[in-house]
Amino acid sequence: MAIPREKISHRVRAQEKIGLPPGTLVHIGERKTEKVKITIIDYDPKNYQEKEVEKVEECFPFKDKPTVTWINIDGLQKVGIIEKIGAHFGIHPLVLEDILHTGQRPKAEDLGDYLFIVLRMLYHDEREDVMIGEQVSLLLGPNYVISFQEREGDIFNPVRERIKNSRGRIRKGGADYLAYTLLDAIVDHYFVILEKMGEKIESLEEELVTNPTPETLQTIHILKKELIFLRKSVWPLREVINSLERGESPLITEPTGIYLRDVYDHTIQVIDTIETYRDMVTGMLDIYLSSLSNRMNEVMKVLTIIATIFIPLTFIAGIYGMNFKFMPELEWHWGYPMALIVMLLVVGSMFIYFRRKKWL
Amino acid sequence: MAIPREKISHRVRAQEKIGLPPGTLVHIGERKTEKVKITIIDYDPKNYQEKEVEKVEECFPFKDKPTVTWINIDGLQKVGIIEKIGAHFGIHPLVLEDILHTGQRPKAEDLGDYLFIVLRMLYHDEREDVMIGEQVSLLLGPNYVISFQEREGDIFNPVRERIKNSRGRIRKGGADYLAYTLLDAIVDHYFVILEKMGEKIESLEEELVTNPTPETLQTIHILKKELIFLRKSVWPLREVINSLERGESPLITEPTGIYLRDVYDHTIQVIDTIETYRDMVTGMLDIYLSSLSNRMNEVMKVLTIIATIFIPLTFIAGIYGMNFKFMPELEWHWGYPMALIVMLLVVGSMFIYFRRKKWL
Amino acid sequence: MAIPREKISHRVRAQEKIGLPPGTLVHIGERKTEKVKITIIDYDPKNYQEKEVEKVEECFPFKDKPTVTWINIDGLQKVGIIEKIGAHFGIHPLVLEDILHTGQRPKAEDLGDYLFIVLRMLYHDEREDVMIGEQVSLLLGPNYVISFQEREGDIFNPVRERIKNSRGRIRKGGADYLAYTLLDAIVDHYFVILEKMGEKIESLEEELVTNPTPETLQTIHILKKELIFLRKSVWPLREVINSLERGESPLITEPTGIYLRDVYDHTIQVIDTIETYRDMVTGMLDIYLSSLSNRMNEVMKVLTIIATIFIPLTFIAGIYGMNFKFMPELEWHWGYPMALIVMLLVVGSMFIYFRRKKWL
Amino acid sequence: MAIPREKISHRVRAQEKIGLPPGTLVHIGERKTEKVKITIIDYDPKNYQEKEVEKVEECFPFKDKPTVTWINIDGLQKVGIIEKIGAHFGIHPLVLEDILHTGQRPKAEDLGDYLFIVLRMLYHDEREDVMIGEQVSLLLGPNYVISFQEREGDIFNPVRERIKNSRGRIRKGGADYLAYTLLDAIVDHYFVILEKMGEKIESLEEELVTNPTPETLQTIHILKKELIFLRKSVWPLREVINSLERGESPLITEPTGIYLRDVYDHTIQVIDTIETYRDMVTGMLDIYLSSLSNRMNEVMKVLTIIATIFIPLTFIAGIYGMNFKFMPELEWHWGYPMALIVMLLVVGSMFIYFRRKKWL
Amino acid sequence: MAIPREKISHRVRAQEKIGLPPGTLVHIGERKTEKVKITIIDYDPKNYQEKEVEKVEECFPFKDKPTVTWINIDGLQKVGIIEKIGAHFGIHPLVLEDILHTGQRPKAEDLGDYLFIVLRMLYHDEREDVMIGEQVSLLLGPNYVISFQEREGDIFNPVRERIKNSRGRIRKGGADYLAYTLLDAIVDHYFVILEKMGEKIESLEEELVTNPTPETLQTIHILKKELIFLRKSVWPLREVINSLERGESPLITEPTGIYLRDVYDHTIQVIDTIETYRDMVTGMLDIYLSSLSNRMNEVMKVLTIIATIFIPLTFIAGIYGMNFKFMPELEWHWGYPMALIVMLLVVGSMFIYFRRKKWL
Repeated sequence: MAIPREKISHRVRAQEKIGLPPGTLVHIGERKTEKVKITIIDYDPKNYQEKEVEKVEECFPFKDKPTVTWINIDGLQKVGIIEKIGAHFGIHPLVLEDILHTGQRPKAEDLGDYLFIVLRMLYHDEREDVMIGEQVSLLLGPNYVISFQEREGDIFNPVRERIKNSRGRIRKGGADYLAYTLLDAIVDHYFVILEKMGEKIESLEEELVTNPTPETLQTIHILKKELIFLRKSVWPLREVINSLERGESPLITEPTGIYLRDVYDHTIQVIDTIETYRDMVTGMLDIYLSSLSNRMNEVMKVLTIIATIFIPLTFIAGIYGMNFKFMPELEWHWGYPMALIVMLLVVGSMFIYFRRKKWL
Repeated sequence: MAIPREKISHRVRAQEKIGLPPGTLVHIGERKTEKVKITIIDYDPKNYQEKEVEKVEECFPFKDKPTVTWINIDGLQKVGIIEKIGAHFGIHPLVLEDILHTGQRPKAEDLGDYLFIVLRMLYHDEREDVMIGEQVSLLLGPNYVISFQEREGDIFNPVRERIKNSRGRIRKGGADYLAYTLLDAIVDHYFVILEKMGEKIESLEEELVTNPTPETLQTIHILKKELIFLRKSVWPLREVINSLERGESPLITEPTGIYLRDVYDHTIQVIDTIETYRDMVTGMLDIYLSSLSNRMNEVMKVLTIIATIFIPLTFIAGIYGMNFKFMPELEWHWGYPMALIVMLLVVGSMFIYFRRKKWL
Repeated sequence: MAIPREKISHRVRAQEKIGLPPGTLVHIGERKTEKVKITIIDYDPKNYQEKEVEKVEECFPFKDKPTVTWINIDGLQKVGIIEKIGAHFGIHPLVLEDILHTGQRPKAEDLGDYLFIVLRMLYHDEREDVMIGEQVSLLLGPNYVISFQEREGDIFNPVRERIKNSRGRIRKGGADYLAYTLLDAIVDHYFVILEKMGEKIESLEEELVTNPTPETLQTIHILKKELIFLRKSVWPLREVINSLERGESPLITEPTGIYLRDVYDHTIQVIDTIETYRDMVTGMLDIYLSSLSNRMNEVMKVLTIIATIFIPLTFIAGIYGMNFKFMPELEWHWGYPMALIVMLLVVGSMFIYFRRKKWL
Repeated sequence: MAIPREKISHRVRAQEKIGLPPGTLVHIGERKTEKVKITIIDYDPKNYQEKEVEKVEECFPFKDKPTVTWINIDGLQKVGIIEKIGAHFGIHPLVLEDILHTGQRPKAEDLGDYLFIVLRMLYHDEREDVMIGEQVSLLLGPNYVISFQEREGDIFNPVRERIKNSRGRIRKGGADYLAYTLLDAIVDHYFVILEKMGEKIESLEEELVTNPTPETLQTIHILKKELIFLRKSVWPLREVINSLERGESPLITEPTGIYLRDVYDHTIQVIDTIETYRDMVTGMLDIYLSSLSNRMNEVMKVLTIIATIFIPLTFIAGIYGMNFKFMPELEWHWGYPMALIVMLLVVGSMFIYFRRKKWL
Repeated sequence: MAIPREKISHRVRAQEKIGLPPGTLVHIGERKTEKVKITIIDYDPKNYQEKEVEKVEECFPFKDKPTVTWINIDGLQKVGIIEKIGAHFGIHPLVLEDILHTGQRPKAEDLGDYLFIVLRMLYHDEREDVMIGEQVSLLLGPNYVISFQEREGDIFNPVRERIKNSRGRIRKGGADYLAYTLLDAIVDHYFVILEKMGEKIESLEEELVTNPTPETLQTIHILKKELIFLRKSVWPLREVINSLERGESPLITEPTGIYLRDVYDHTIQVIDTIETYRDMVTGMLDIYLSSLSNRMNEVMKVLTIIATIFIPLTFIAGIYGMNFKFMPELEWHWGYPMALIVMLLVVGSMFIYFRRKKWL
């Protein structure tokens, strides 16, 4: 799991945009898919219709039908499509710009006829062990929801299934309930990301205790950066959903408000967990640093024990290696054993000293 | 005392839930007990009745009796029971979901006919020295309280005793007073957890001063994590009880409001103590780290003293171990004693030097 | 000065309380005095009466007299006394419980007929160099103040003197002015505690610079804990006095409000100073840690200088201590002096090197 | 990229100002350009006129024309020009003072007839790798915008181009839309600065992992200071734009308000990124410090391995270098090989020890 | 620049005050001047009068004159003077107490007939390089300003000059404008203090990079304490001036409100700069600590290089210093040069090793 690349490419393109008038539609962000895929799901409690269309114009008739219509667009690189939708549904140019300019902070804006919601969808790419972030934009009108994704994903699939199979109250709910369902699917997916992180933290903690290496520090650092990134993505969502839930817009009916409160609770839980993880990762850094100190201590002890035992011995040997003519000990018959005994005594006393210091 | 296991198992099951429509009733969380136990306590100032029932339907007649009824359900694994209660008492599906989906953040929701309160009950498992968290959900209606616990516990026993023996004003109070009593019992129990922690901190502090080991650091780290967990459980409760106390719901009468203020005060006290403990544990880490440095200093001093005393001596011995043909000192009669005296002088001056440096 | 013992004993007794109905009167906290002392001071601008009574019932007639009455109770262990006062003056059972359950967070509660104020009185026990905390509870009625202390103290003595001697406007003021005067006396005493701390911090700073020892760290740690404790005692007081000053209760007249604003200013000043001290103590820890590093550096330098000077010398001596048959230098007449000169050159160049490194 | 010099020169001149009455016009700040350049752009949807004037009086007639007029002044050193504009357009002396006194905190003030907006324009001087800050002041009247810059810059060029070429809705917008466009140009440019920083952080992270040097620390420190500076420049802007957007002034029309919300979002995004960078830089410091410890550990290990292997060997050699008359080993025929074998055994056991410690 | 002494002396005297009734006038604080100096400046747009008076009673007639009167009192030790002014101008005893009890937190109080403003004047004593704090109290009535200083200073001199020379609009403004001018003079002087600090920080940064010593740490610590002190003095001022500016008191006219907003902006700027300095000083501590580690690393490297080169060499010399009878190498004709060559090889390989480690 590494920090998503998209941020960098986003940064590089930001410069190209500078100097253009506001509302100029240019797609800023990585081109993540080749083809733009447009799917329409149209339903009421009794009927259900799903189709993939080639031309964006095929969506337009659904605007004025009484049924609930969900138009989903995967891929933002064809600016023309966005422009046409904007023109037909009467979307403000700045909103269209925000849809294309991926890298927005999560926000919800009430533009009278429709609500504009931006948030970040996060998933974990198993193959490369990378956390991937993607901008999802929702336009909620009286009887339609238009969703824009940067690439095809499978997070909305269960929602599609539920509509198709008429499970839950989704077919009876209006467009606002559909928008809630989409929000809920995205927020629910955060828990999967959190789980991955939780597992990483747990394995890191074990690594820290058993065998910390400089790579452990690297991993802690990367985890910390991922949490910073995650927090930046989720933190503003709290305010977004709260503003929706307060039900100031007539587009959101009261029963849906209760469901939004549920999403709000989940968002808070995600934020709580992120904060907890941050605290834990910070604690891990402290442990890592003190394990470094501990290891240094151990190294120093070995050196000190060896040196303090042998340096005096070597000195004694040195004494009797001197070439003075008159050194009575050298002549003694038991001189050599005596010297050895003296050395043994030195070793013994050192040993006792270290024991008392609890170094051995 | 270690971090509760439940969090992990909860996380793992979270994935299973993803994709289901909201309000789908699935029990998420560890299955903590084998049998689901349903007990009914029904009372008014004069009468008292307690029974354990097998079938949940036996609870239903109590809904419309004027007496106060407390239905307590231990064990959440039988979703059917929760569903039936929900249907009979008119509980919103999202509320039922929250009851089953243990791991909720403490919250209170006013749903018109009834209040829904979730909080965490914490106890300390003496055998395994583990802090255990459990979700308790309360439904407070006009004349009933339904409480859901994950397993059988003894925290509510004193409340049962009090109702039975008609101690305090509990038999005269309404359902709201009963709900308050249950909240109070849970919050009071937090103090027991805090005491355990206080004892651990005290013994850790002593350990730190007398004999810090890498295990001490581990313990500090675990304590820190427990405090993070505890804080996460208690912090939102402040807002929960405050919202109840403000008395916006007609279900909570004014006299009970005063009692809730008391619980509120206790919650604040618990939070205060948690913060104090956090500050103390952080301080302990600083002490641990500097005790490491101190020990390193001591090791280094021993090495330095031994080395700086013997290295020059060994050098002198080395000089007179040289085999030059013409070394006048070697021929001197007093050469050897002189060399020894020079060595003694070196040792002496070193000794004085170390004394002045306060290393000895 | 060490952390007050009372907290611990309080904790231990907390458990005994669990399970009792709210409002059950049990004294929780250390029993700090043997005898319960009840004193009554009754005055109006013209008359003054002070007496110590044996039986609590003697206080009761004062309730309905138009004069201002101050009933002071030192010692809380006789629950009966508190109960009788509660019954006669119409005090809510929860308030009585809070009075007995010492260890409350400072708070003010408006109960209609009377105000209930709890705060912590702090003094410094000179003999044991311990900071002592004690709970003081005040009940302010229309024409009476009842104060509860855990033990006899001398902080209220100047107030007694002032009433007796009719100094200041106290005899003209009502019961609210008396309550203000008691609050003021307690808050003023915080400054004495702060002074003690200031002195400790100053002497610690000097110690840090001249001769830091592991004991210095211990002292910093204790100081930090005392500041945490002090902060916990004073911080909520700010809100307490602010709520009194806002004058929502008719029991507090407007002129007294201005005086309370003065106490409020003092509280803010106390909090400011505590925060400043915290910042200073944190800074001291940094200095201590870096002084450890400095000392280590110094030790290492000594070792390095000695070792790097003598190791090469010993090597040279070693060379000429070898027993090869054919070593021309050994035969030279000036071989020995030359070896010595080489050694001197080595020492000289090392010396220059260390000078350049600024180690000498 | 280093910290801008302007702050220092600003500080030095601050003293000169002290004692002058408020509203005295003195230019405080570096003189950044030689000539003061005044350009006028006057336009309505149909007409467009741009000219550079020598005398400030030439601007005056535009005040009462119905067209939108943008007067841009590069260079603040000629106080007379500012004074004349102030007199003709009825600008408050304090506003004029703020324009001249560069180093203002970003702010917006509603002075009835006109709005006064101060903010900081930041660019990156490629040649000297320095981040440069400059104060831009805007006066927004009913049909004019007067902008004051400290020196000529090219950030407003695209805006000029857009007016000239009538791109976007700028020619149709009023003076408020022009002011928004200028704000937008400045805020957009912050992203360029952030990109530069992002690149620096990325290259620093790589440096940290591969080859950290004391210069790395210096760079981290400079980066940190730049972020502090940047934050100080941008943080207040949030409040400024928010206050404009709330549309309390009739000078700002509602459609422009929506555009200002867009600038507001960008500002929040800039602030978010700054905070993220701060977190990342802090994390880098931790890594740097622990890489120092790691390197120390490595150095110590080498020393310890060498010393613990050779010190015992040297001791053995020392033993047999002693000159005792009676040392049987010396006489043995296989004494020398045996000694060597003993030494090899010592080396071997040491080697095994280090392997087990994972030092080799 | 060291921490002001006044705080300590203030602390010591605080105890003397305890027990006195509120409103008792005792001067608490250092006696900073010998003589109390009272000056009166009385003016309207046309007339101007300045005199130094001996007796405080000479001020009284000015109270009811329509002209603006500024009474300035330097020195607070004569309580009688303050008392008489209090009596004549109808000042509340608590206000008088606050004037005398120097060490107040900056605050503004609206007492109906007059405003009471306390703030701290700070200057830098060049001779002793000490930052000096002094309490300035202002009483603003309908047509008078009374200012109390602890000692004579020259910060108000420019204001006097301006009134005398009728510069700026001061002679046309009322008493509120005069009060503003005094506030402005004090706040402007903070910038001088900040400049001094800025210079110190810059020189410290250079010192840190070139030659950090334990004294550098001391200086950082002192700087940090000065910033804490400065912050404590300025932070509350923000709220003070904000409350004045909001213009709730009829004593402050609307035009003066605009000028106060200017002072408010300056205060925010001062606070911003203090925060920036705090961040910078914190960063310096990190650099200092890591420079310590760096230096240790360097010392260790020197030791390690010397030791690892010479220890093996000395061992080789030791081998051939052994006295075994049968050591073939000793007999070889080229034995000695060979030994030297082996040693050279060891040195060479060590050298290559250290190069590869980048230690040389």
